[in-house]
Amino acid sequence: MQIIITGGQGFLGQRLAKTLLNQSQLNISELVLIDVIQPTAPNNDSRVRCLEMDLRHPIGLEKIITPQTTAIFHLAAIVSSHAEQDPDLGYEINFLATRNLLEVCRQNNPKVRFIFSSSLAVFGGTLPEIISDGTAVTPQSTYGTQKAMCELLINDYSRKGFVDGIVVRLPTICIRPGKPNKAASSFVSSIMREPLHGENAICPVSEDLRLWLSSPNTVINNFIHALQLPPLPPRDWHVINLPGFSVCVKQMLADLAEVKGRQILQHIQFAFDENINNIVASWPAEINNTTALKLGFKVDTDFKNVIQQFIRDDM
Amino acid sequence: MQIIITGGQGFLGQRLAKTLLNQSQLNISELVLIDVIQPTAPNNDSRVRCLEMDLRHPIGLEKIITPQTTAIFHLAAIVSSHAEQDPDLGYEINFLATRNLLEVCRQNNPKVRFIFSSSLAVFGGTLPEIISDGTAVTPQSTYGTQKAMCELLINDYSRKGFVDGIVVRLPTICIRPGKPNKAASSFVSSIMREPLHGENAICPVSEDLRLWLSSPNTVINNFIHALQLPPLPPRDWHVINLPGFSVCVKQMLADLAEVKGRQILQHIQFAFDENINNIVASWPAEINNTTALKLGFKVDTDFKNVIQQFIRDDM
Repeated sequence: MQIIITGGQGFLGQRLAKTLLNQSQLNISELVLIDVIQPTAPNNDSRVRCLEMDLRHPIGLEKIITPQTTAIFHLAAIVSSHAEQDPDLGYEINFLATRNLLEVCRQNNPKVRFIFSSSLAVFGGTLPEIISDGTAVTPQSTYGTQKAMCELLINDYSRKGFVDGIVVRLPTICIRPGKPNKAASSFVSSIMREPLHGENAICPVSEDLRLWLSSPNTVINNFIHALQLPPLPPRDWHVINLPGFSVCVKQMLADLAEVKGRQILQHIQFAFDENINNIVASWPAEINNTTALKLGFKVDTDFKNVIQQFIRDDM
Repeated sequence: MQIIITGGQGFLGQRLAKTLLNQSQLNISELVLIDVIQPTAPNNDSRVRCLEMDLRHPIGLEKIITPQTTAIFHLAAIVSSHAEQDPDLGYEINFLATRNLLEVCRQNNPKVRFIFSSSLAVFGGTLPEIISDGTAVTPQSTYGTQKAMCELLINDYSRKGFVDGIVVRLPTICIRPGKPNKAASSFVSSIMREPLHGENAICPVSEDLRLWLSSPNTVINNFIHALQLPPLPPRDWHVINLPGFSVCVKQMLADLAEVKGRQILQHIQFAFDENINNIVASWPAEINNTTALKLGFKVDTDFKNVIQQFIRDDM
């Protein structure tokens, strides 16, 4: 099968690429990585084609998405704090570029599985304690707004048979390896990752803030599950809240201390940042996993296990 | 005050214009009607400026929306069955043109009250028996999808202070005077209006189908109430389900017979149309009016009164 990943040089894109290439039963013949910076092929795998492309000005997409394409993972996005500061750039990448990709699929290959990474940032405002499939989407951020608009568009395109779409709403991913980014949730990984590397980190929110998390490995496995699912009935709602677990910052720190000893907490300073807190606190702290688990998606067991995963796989 | 109405030559646009011009306490200095066909000034009122304009190619909008503009009623739309047949045209008018208007407001006058007519077509699929403010928007039509995308955009623009937006979700309007149109709900008025004019009409849905209705007069009064409301807090959700009432087709026919005698029902033939039925049956039959009534919006008393209103005002 031929698979395309946008945002292919990003953390998730690279990790997904590596995992896909390692799964022999998937029989990947070609994996196209697209990113605004030149992507790199994991392990120099010869099945990988790397394309540097600004999705605002996509040239030759209609030669990349063809009747041979099995699936597109559309991960490219302007992240939350960045889109909040620059809503117009966010609109161009997060919304218009998505529509453009969908249009190429519609013209060239309506059977393509279009897997779109949405976010719990589509939720906001007054929320029930536990989000369900029937909870209204009322984002309090530009990023969440743009993701929610894409969710609607992908559903309509799927209902009309223009594309075989599946939207997966990602929990906040923790612990991300690498560097902090412009996502409002960047601190969630920083306050674990930096101390584990012996570096300092700032926590810009209250210790009592509850977060809805998934480990990177679980998210990647769930992406691959979304690739393998049979097509959803066209009139069903094609948005799946990927499974996550709820944990407060205080508990995350306690778990970190339990794994590595209390002295590690010296690396964390608290410095409240209203902008970040406003965005992150507007996101749900808990979502009902029933539908996703029924569809065969997986969930992490607990946060301590997530820390141990990071130490094992990413350090 | 200066007010702009897009879709100004449509049924709602003309009726709103007439009503606004008659309200002396509003002190309308200029009323701009914009439509794709040359609009006409109600009663040749000299305060009315009529502009023929295709909103896909708006020329000179930045000279029309100025710091002197108090409000825009954005009513122009490609209606439901039409957007279902031609989703690309729907996207251009229902979504892109709305964004373009919002952008001109953001540049020229972010204080402008932007009143957007959305629709209960944003709802669809598996719905609770009574829709609430917290019910997820999962449209089963292209029209509903495009309206829902605009709702999100207007909320984000309002939160960011780019515009002072209020979205009103209209119930199905019954009884519309005039001719049938391409709305899937066109029959709802036809099965009352045509018989009252001694003409035949086709009912394409089951007699048991329940509809969520409002009379034209009530919708117009609620539009004017939306103009006069104080600005909503920026982080509130700026979408209001306008009040309506629930009635089934059978009851509408019984009420018609009660008002005009049973022989009037001879004018109605039943011819089931799956396409229309699928769209209309996916809309909610009942919505909780509490929030709207609390904000001072009004509701009709009953359907018989709506028939009598039509006979008095529109025949």
